[in-house]
Amino acid sequence: MVTKTSPMGWNSWDCYGTSVTEEIVKQNADFMAKHLKKYGWEYIVIDAQWFEPKAKTHSYNQFTELCMDEYSRLIPTENRFPSSKGGKGFAPLAEYIHSLGLKFGIHIMRGIPRQAVHRNTKIKGSDKTARQIAKTASICAWNTDMYGVDPSKDGAKEYYDSIFELYASWGVDFIKCDDIARELPHEEKELLMLSDCLHNCGRDMILSLSPGPALLEKAELYKQVSNMWRITDDFWDDWELLYDMFSRAEKWCTHAGAGHWPDADMLPIGPIKQDYDKSIRTNFTCNEQITMMTLWSILRSPLIIGGEMTRFDDFTMNLVTNEKILEMHKNARHSHQVWRKEIDSVEHILWTATNSQGGIYIAVFNTGSADSEIEIPLTDIEIYDKVYGTELWSGKAISAKESLKIKLESHEAKAFLLNTQN
Amino acid sequence: MVTKTSPMGWNSWDCYGTSVTEEIVKQNADFMAKHLKKYGWEYIVIDAQWFEPKAKTHSYNQFTELCMDEYSRLIPTENRFPSSKGGKGFAPLAEYIHSLGLKFGIHIMRGIPRQAVHRNTKIKGSDKTARQIAKTASICAWNTDMYGVDPSKDGAKEYYDSIFELYASWGVDFIKCDDIARELPHEEKELLMLSDCLHNCGRDMILSLSPGPALLEKAELYKQVSNMWRITDDFWDDWELLYDMFSRAEKWCTHAGAGHWPDADMLPIGPIKQDYDKSIRTNFTCNEQITMMTLWSILRSPLIIGGEMTRFDDFTMNLVTNEKILEMHKNARHSHQVWRKEIDSVEHILWTATNSQGGIYIAVFNTGSADSEIEIPLTDIEIYDKVYGTELWSGKAISAKESLKIKLESHEAKAFLLNTQN
Amino acid sequence: MVTKTSPMGWNSWDCYGTSVTEEIVKQNADFMAKHLKKYGWEYIVIDAQWFEPKAKTHSYNQFTELCMDEYSRLIPTENRFPSSKGGKGFAPLAEYIHSLGLKFGIHIMRGIPRQAVHRNTKIKGSDKTARQIAKTASICAWNTDMYGVDPSKDGAKEYYDSIFELYASWGVDFIKCDDIARELPHEEKELLMLSDCLHNCGRDMILSLSPGPALLEKAELYKQVSNMWRITDDFWDDWELLYDMFSRAEKWCTHAGAGHWPDADMLPIGPIKQDYDKSIRTNFTCNEQITMMTLWSILRSPLIIGGEMTRFDDFTMNLVTNEKILEMHKNARHSHQVWRKEIDSVEHILWTATNSQGGIYIAVFNTGSADSEIEIPLTDIEIYDKVYGTELWSGKAISAKESLKIKLESHEAKAFLLNTQN
Amino acid sequence: MVTKTSPMGWNSWDCYGTSVTEEIVKQNADFMAKHLKKYGWEYIVIDAQWFEPKAKTHSYNQFTELCMDEYSRLIPTENRFPSSKGGKGFAPLAEYIHSLGLKFGIHIMRGIPRQAVHRNTKIKGSDKTARQIAKTASICAWNTDMYGVDPSKDGAKEYYDSIFELYASWGVDFIKCDDIARELPHEEKELLMLSDCLHNCGRDMILSLSPGPALLEKAELYKQVSNMWRITDDFWDDWELLYDMFSRAEKWCTHAGAGHWPDADMLPIGPIKQDYDKSIRTNFTCNEQITMMTLWSILRSPLIIGGEMTRFDDFTMNLVTNEKILEMHKNARHSHQVWRKEIDSVEHILWTATNSQGGIYIAVFNTGSADSEIEIPLTDIEIYDKVYGTELWSGKAISAKESLKIKLESHEAKAFLLNTQN
Repeated sequence: MVTKTSPMGWNSWDCYGTSVTEEIVKQNADFMAKHLKKYGWEYIVIDAQWFEPKAKTHSYNQFTELCMDEYSRLIPTENRFPSSKGGKGFAPLAEYIHSLGLKFGIHIMRGIPRQAVHRNTKIKGSDKTARQIAKTASICAWNTDMYGVDPSKDGAKEYYDSIFELYASWGVDFIKCDDIARELPHEEKELLMLSDCLHNCGRDMILSLSPGPALLEKAELYKQVSNMWRITDDFWDDWELLYDMFSRAEKWCTHAGAGHWPDADMLPIGPIKQDYDKSIRTNFTCNEQITMMTLWSILRSPLIIGGEMTRFDDFTMNLVTNEKILEMHKNARHSHQVWRKEIDSVEHILWTATNSQGGIYIAVFNTGSADSEIEIPLTDIEIYDKVYGTELWSGKAISAKESLKIKLESHEAKAFLLNTQN
Repeated sequence: MVTKTSPMGWNSWDCYGTSVTEEIVKQNADFMAKHLKKYGWEYIVIDAQWFEPKAKTHSYNQFTELCMDEYSRLIPTENRFPSSKGGKGFAPLAEYIHSLGLKFGIHIMRGIPRQAVHRNTKIKGSDKTARQIAKTASICAWNTDMYGVDPSKDGAKEYYDSIFELYASWGVDFIKCDDIARELPHEEKELLMLSDCLHNCGRDMILSLSPGPALLEKAELYKQVSNMWRITDDFWDDWELLYDMFSRAEKWCTHAGAGHWPDADMLPIGPIKQDYDKSIRTNFTCNEQITMMTLWSILRSPLIIGGEMTRFDDFTMNLVTNEKILEMHKNARHSHQVWRKEIDSVEHILWTATNSQGGIYIAVFNTGSADSEIEIPLTDIEIYDKVYGTELWSGKAISAKESLKIKLESHEAKAFLLNTQN
Repeated sequence: MVTKTSPMGWNSWDCYGTSVTEEIVKQNADFMAKHLKKYGWEYIVIDAQWFEPKAKTHSYNQFTELCMDEYSRLIPTENRFPSSKGGKGFAPLAEYIHSLGLKFGIHIMRGIPRQAVHRNTKIKGSDKTARQIAKTASICAWNTDMYGVDPSKDGAKEYYDSIFELYASWGVDFIKCDDIARELPHEEKELLMLSDCLHNCGRDMILSLSPGPALLEKAELYKQVSNMWRITDDFWDDWELLYDMFSRAEKWCTHAGAGHWPDADMLPIGPIKQDYDKSIRTNFTCNEQITMMTLWSILRSPLIIGGEMTRFDDFTMNLVTNEKILEMHKNARHSHQVWRKEIDSVEHILWTATNSQGGIYIAVFNTGSADSEIEIPLTDIEIYDKVYGTELWSGKAISAKESLKIKLESHEAKAFLLNTQN
Repeated sequence: MVTKTSPMGWNSWDCYGTSVTEEIVKQNADFMAKHLKKYGWEYIVIDAQWFEPKAKTHSYNQFTELCMDEYSRLIPTENRFPSSKGGKGFAPLAEYIHSLGLKFGIHIMRGIPRQAVHRNTKIKGSDKTARQIAKTASICAWNTDMYGVDPSKDGAKEYYDSIFELYASWGVDFIKCDDIARELPHEEKELLMLSDCLHNCGRDMILSLSPGPALLEKAELYKQVSNMWRITDDFWDDWELLYDMFSRAEKWCTHAGAGHWPDADMLPIGPIKQDYDKSIRTNFTCNEQITMMTLWSILRSPLIIGGEMTRFDDFTMNLVTNEKILEMHKNARHSHQVWRKEIDSVEHILWTATNSQGGIYIAVFNTGSADSEIEIPLTDIEIYDKVYGTELWSGKAISAKESLKIKLESHEAKAFLLNTQN
């Protein structure tokens, strides 16, 4: 599926871990439809363990009983997703979300449930059984639910066809597949089979690959089989992780394009980790959130909100509804880092992109621990004339000749749209 | 247990893989008692999958049903081991073997059965269950029977205590524990717990660790927790594997001593792989078998016969009953390689050891592809007098002044016991 | 020095190795001035060993006598550069080249002549001597002329100041410094000192660093201290080397900008290696030369002709005077690879860039061994409208809707300037 | 040359660095002849830079003028070795040392003097010159005197023949060749040529290779071409270096034998570094010196005193004249480590060897930071009877049954000769 813009949405993980419920999903979908849809936000994604009755927090229960149909396929647990009763799966919830004008996604794990393998249950459309298609020594490093599927075995394709057929019948629009992105080259053939089955299931679905870091030398493969792939391990509200994203973004930026996006992971903003404590809010300062949103946008990474939206404060609402920044996310092309260097002993990073509608974007980041006032020669972005433009966060008009003077607090960012004509 | 000599015995694997039966074990035990016991051969060891009803060959059935007691402990499958009926386990078979004056061993896998974990069965002596002690992502690379046990969990020690209590009750003398020797440092704590439980079970049992290659930097650990450890991956009747053993032996030789032995693996001699085809015999030439037996003996490796003994031909019987060679295996001390070099373009290797009863052993190997006649200066073994002695395989007396002249065919070995006095 | 476009010129190495003479340089300068200057070609660069009287071919004489002034500075050998007589150095030759409206460059080696060190000669502006500033164990891997200079020693800066002062007095515009680009981090401090001294010598000179491959993790450093740096070891007329350049170019492309250019090395076209045999011509096919020129141009690499220009045939003249291609070299911005993949079993590579004057460049390469006819969806370059444009090599107008159909021979390339409006 | 015992002697380096003089050499030779010769000490070796007039300390002068004959061969500097005047070289000094019943050795550097190469001087017995045999980019990492010699060049063999012919004519008995032992495999061919030329020069000379660490995978090569090779980088009076020697010794011990010895480097005992300060004495405690002497002796490493012998105190004299320890150095065979482990939280190491005259040596080291009282089961050394014996340092008789009780201070060692009969 070739999307012009990388996906924008909400995911339940940062806020609820494995404990999300149908009610929470609906309240966030309602909020998004009312307040955010008009800015381009559209996906509502349920993350891990929707098939596990005892799931409660961000950690995993080991070897626990999962909800499964007769064909070895996981289905929603009715205690957290009551509308799934009677074998309806996520169809009623998807229908509700579609009725709001939004799209619906779910998280899956590569492979087939271990309990299916040990019980030797059936595969739909095949006379093979779960035990016969499992890949012996392929397991997830952090979760005990699944065995990998061996794509060379008869019945393997039928299994993957059967799960995507099920998800299509529910009305799923987005699959976040886990335990796969960084498992190359070992599990490459399983990825190819999974991707083929998904793309042939009869319904358009975004395929998102986790966890990172994805392998740069496999960039062409990710682009061909998926719509987005994680360039980092789990990202959280920690400056070191945010700082580290600059070098990841630098390496991956040229691989963003229509339908294929390097994914810098979810935005841990507003109330998060609510399964632990209702008072938890993101650790990021306001400046750091602006830095994050600026980098993700000029990189054209998917934008997936991680916090509980219904309790966003004004700052957070403004963060995700700044039209000029979201326009950069939509219209930036050919994004790349220009330089990273110390200016007056403070590290700064400069990115640029073109605007598909005309003009040049630049984003300037102060990644040091002191505030700064710097001057960027226009020749750094190969401009030899006067420029006119706008700072995107503030909306202030600017003009510059020879160089652009910028004040930045520590960890702050500014972004500009520049033109050589006024 | 401090044994003066490394174990000598028979193991069912090379000949029968996972398909060995009680009848086969007994016929080999009978043969050993009658023909080989007097030469020092004493252990009869049942290798992998004695708990698996459908096991048939050298390969493994995946995710198959295993025989298990109520405490998550594997027990013999009655179809291949009928005397185990009625919950007797291996006790009757062990008793039979003991009655012949021999000792009895079994193969086990590190960990707890996956089926116990998925069924969440009990642990003897603990209120914890199988699911609570399994180590999430610790599995064997080639076999789907077990999960590792997490030694930090309550119930883990009770599980290991309970299995060695069971084996002791059966009368087991030798445990070959698999999926552990080369799994350091990851599974080091599980090895320590397993070894402690075995040594405190109330019955003396040899602990043998597989598979190799063991890690040289962990030599002190192996010596402290076990009696023998594999220095190589599975060894078969292939010259390349035999040739490769010289460099492994060179590295490990100084770690042999009372109660702790580097293990060069089983001797694939006579009829092997009988589960595939009754006509299969070892691929090794006679010279290569002499080379193998010489190297294993001067290295003081355990000597574990892999072939069906009842159908040994004369050559093979002579190979395993040469008293002078077996005396070297018993009395060699301080074994080590002297040199490896080309002489007249043919590679030769010289080993030496002292004899605990007096005199010096040397073993000379032609590892090249041409026959040779070489002369070894006595100064190479720091002898400055005349020497007198015996070639061990032929029993011929020899004497030498200044140098020893030796004729060797390609891949042949000779071994000598030398004294400076006649 | 911030140049808007990466340098275009001629270098003596590919054609004459160490044997180039003043006469040859002048004849090529005359030719360039008359036929190529109007297309942007302007630098005339004398490569290695201009200070060595006995130099004859592409190989180096070991430990040979070099021409040197009293201050340990190398000077031109009068037998090949007669105008340098009387201590005039390259001043007369530079003056001649300037008189043609061209610029003049020379090759130097990092460090100080070994003969200066062993004779312990003087350093201008310092009471230290050559022996006192040499870096003991820093030598070039292929050439015996120099020792590295230890930047921590008194006199080191004076030495580097003195050589650039001399080159400035001659009128040098371009320094190709060898044995330095890939010697990081070991020789990083020497590079910093050398660069500082050059930039403070009072004359603008391009600094070009060799040999490659430069280190990607030092990209920011190269950009700050130099104008161009080699991304590859010596490049010659061999398809494997050309093919290999695509992955190098992909990694380095975002580091091109005003005044700093990744350097894919000289263009071995027309008559080359004339010191060996006057009949030698480039091994590259016409298609391969077009592929090379297209890649170098969209990457914005420096373009430095390696062949004897006065004997260029028509194809070669057209190759270096195609105005549309040279305009891409000049006006491309934000160049990067879009994808590399097999289409109908033939590998193709797609690059894109924006045109600073408006429109989008794309370059399509068939790097497989069969001819092809492919169709590139316009969405690959994020265009959703009809496009109009021109193929640059042929000058043919094209238009496309949804996809662009392209025929390519094996190893051929095409390049297009596209606009969404006609 | 096949020596039964590894060399014992004195070397000027630890005490005098590059500043040693003829007078110092003679005073140490006189002392050795009078006090130590009867214990087996016999070599007097002049270390680095005997050809350099300005040498003063343990550091090297860079690019300095060396004394050289017309054939590119270094000769003693007359200011420090006045007896060498008139072209006599070391002949008079060697003659003096021989007259004391001792042997004479010198240090050399691999290669040919750089000054010979830059002056292009002659090679004896060849029409080639220094410049023609130098290996371009082969230099020493810490010393600027030499270039490597390229063994593939005509004249290379003649050069090496000519230097050993010269040393033989002087009466040299021992060559310590530097910049070679750890330079494999790069300089392996030069080592082979050098060794061949030395062994064919007509005079028996020990060949000692420096610096270490030598490469274990090249053990067979060192044994074939040399008599001793350094298993460590420069060893000094620092516990960390001494502690580290245990693991080096463990790896190399089986390679000791008649004529070939792993070399643990010189013994920095008594007054050392006298070129810096006359008051400097070894930093090692008495216990540490006993540990060192015990390890070197049971390993059968060469024993080369590094301190100024004429000012040895009683402890140091006793250290180097303990007859029982020196007998172990002479008669130990098949030495190897038995174990290294913590006993009561203090690390201990046990070594063993056989005595060529009968009996077993053991050496016990306390390498921890606390004193200890330990009990070693006799089965650890495969003794199952009572033992009788002597502690070598103290001369005290001991006997033991089942286990040996030993008291050790931190960093102390004890050594025993044990027999099963009294």
